[in-house]
Amino acid sequence: MMSELKTYYKSVCDADERIKSFIHQTAVLSSSAINKITGNKIFFKCENFQKVGAFKFRGACNAVFSLSNKELAKGVATHSSGNHAAAIALAARIKGTKAHIVMPDNSPEIKKKAVAGYGANITYCPPTLEARESTMARVLEQTGASFIHPYNSLQVICGQGTAAKEFLTEIPDLDILMAPVGGGGLLSGTAISSKAIKPGIKVIAGEPKGADDARKSFKAGKLIPSVSPQTIADGLLTSLGDITFPIILKYVDDIITVKEKSIIEAMRFVWERMKIIIEPSSAVPLAILLENPDLFQNKNIGIILSGGNVDLENLPF
Amino acid sequence: MMSELKTYYKSVCDADERIKSFIHQTAVLSSSAINKITGNKIFFKCENFQKVGAFKFRGACNAVFSLSNKELAKGVATHSSGNHAAAIALAARIKGTKAHIVMPDNSPEIKKKAVAGYGANITYCPPTLEARESTMARVLEQTGASFIHPYNSLQVICGQGTAAKEFLTEIPDLDILMAPVGGGGLLSGTAISSKAIKPGIKVIAGEPKGADDARKSFKAGKLIPSVSPQTIADGLLTSLGDITFPIILKYVDDIITVKEKSIIEAMRFVWERMKIIIEPSSAVPLAILLENPDLFQNKNIGIILSGGNVDLENLPF
Repeated sequence: MMSELKTYYKSVCDADERIKSFIHQTAVLSSSAINKITGNKIFFKCENFQKVGAFKFRGACNAVFSLSNKELAKGVATHSSGNHAAAIALAARIKGTKAHIVMPDNSPEIKKKAVAGYGANITYCPPTLEARESTMARVLEQTGASFIHPYNSLQVICGQGTAAKEFLTEIPDLDILMAPVGGGGLLSGTAISSKAIKPGIKVIAGEPKGADDARKSFKAGKLIPSVSPQTIADGLLTSLGDITFPIILKYVDDIITVKEKSIIEAMRFVWERMKIIIEPSSAVPLAILLENPDLFQNKNIGIILSGGNVDLENLPF
Repeated sequence: MMSELKTYYKSVCDADERIKSFIHQTAVLSSSAINKITGNKIFFKCENFQKVGAFKFRGACNAVFSLSNKELAKGVATHSSGNHAAAIALAARIKGTKAHIVMPDNSPEIKKKAVAGYGANITYCPPTLEARESTMARVLEQTGASFIHPYNSLQVICGQGTAAKEFLTEIPDLDILMAPVGGGGLLSGTAISSKAIKPGIKVIAGEPKGADDARKSFKAGKLIPSVSPQTIADGLLTSLGDITFPIILKYVDDIITVKEKSIIEAMRFVWERMKIIIEPSSAVPLAILLENPDLFQNKNIGIILSGGNVDLENLPF
């Protein structure tokens, strides 16, 4: 019998086969300035260069491409304020089906535009959990579309895990792999691939102090959802789900929180030194290293830069 | 006897050998969104990822590394408002010698900081040609340093030509190679490598309408310097020199000017679609394609992105 980890990882490998000709195998970049300042050798996996500008396209493709033709004919649906919505919209377009997206009406303009640009059918709702759920239920009833959760789905998780699989194939000698954590889709997929490929690697997540449900849940050993989280890292406002949490509890080594100031500093550091655009969520792992200069030294550290969708007219610096 | 072009290109190959272990062999990136909108296959050579954030490091290294030990002992010097100054400062530091930089006192903060960060000796002067020249003369007299011109120097030109050499080695089937033109160092080096490697390629330069001395000189067949040029592309304010101009006249196919609005649009387009940071000068060749959608279709077009040094607190959008 296969171990649980091997079973999960086999699903990552299946996802990889399913999506690889539709996604970008994103570049891995380094910066001698950032290496020097942090005292480590840091490798950045650039999911900001991924289609739709974020890793979310991996999980969305895997989930949409796994549907039967009969299911696909009725379309797909999700609720999301951002990157997952764009990812589902593009994955649906590739499969020639319709995407129905429920979005809070206060979503960033750049994200509304992106989703509309991929031809999705958008239904706006007030930015509350109740409004989102009732609107989503109505859309699903009217369309019969398949609901694809932004993170609490094994298909989505295994799609996100393909990023770490590619990363460790390109840079096998990482000591530590870091990713940000919001709902936990990227983190749980990253942990599955990392521990399956290299059992000795440390998987460490970064989380904003103002949205620290994952760290609290991880330390308590039970799900403790966020209450009115506040952070500039708008991709990390969501709380862990009942599918992502057990995987994280089992395969992640630590979750470390960072201040808003450090997130903005790390983001600016990457923009200025690497000349690449990352969104605040992407900067959270590097913020850990800037806040805790003695935590790691002389390590090979991989960081997954989760996305690059930023409203250029609304920068924090 | 070698032809003039072959002689020049041999110097590019010598430069390549001299500098290659000190510079980045920069990535070539593409964007399906930009390909779709322009109707061509566009390859971007990312000199914004080059050390000091601009192609200028190539020419600076070649010029500094070509000096004798006796010359190096007295240091190197230049006047520059930006990228060339940082490039000379870093090249000098690599050789363990001093860089003396004359900078206009109204230079962008980000560029002052960068030059100071590389340990150069900065002398500020008022932003006039007279002040710059008299200050430079004084610094050279006091130090005995070797003056390295920002563009009107064969060593600098041949260093810049290594970018096109790398580019055509990686993407041999380019139909057109485009670069921005200011003083003409990058353009003349690009033209030498392009025509030597692939005689049938077209080399096309982009220039802001508000600083169009190169186009005027090119059309008239004689040097016509700019009078109070105005453009957001702060790397392109300088006029051609008597060494760059004859090379450009002989080996460049066309120089096309663009509006400020198109430069800003092209810059934003690259930021949003490619998630990389480029400075306005880098956006000028793409601006040609956006302004003139029918000029080229179904071509393989190479564009050298010259640099990525932008003041993040002072963006045009």
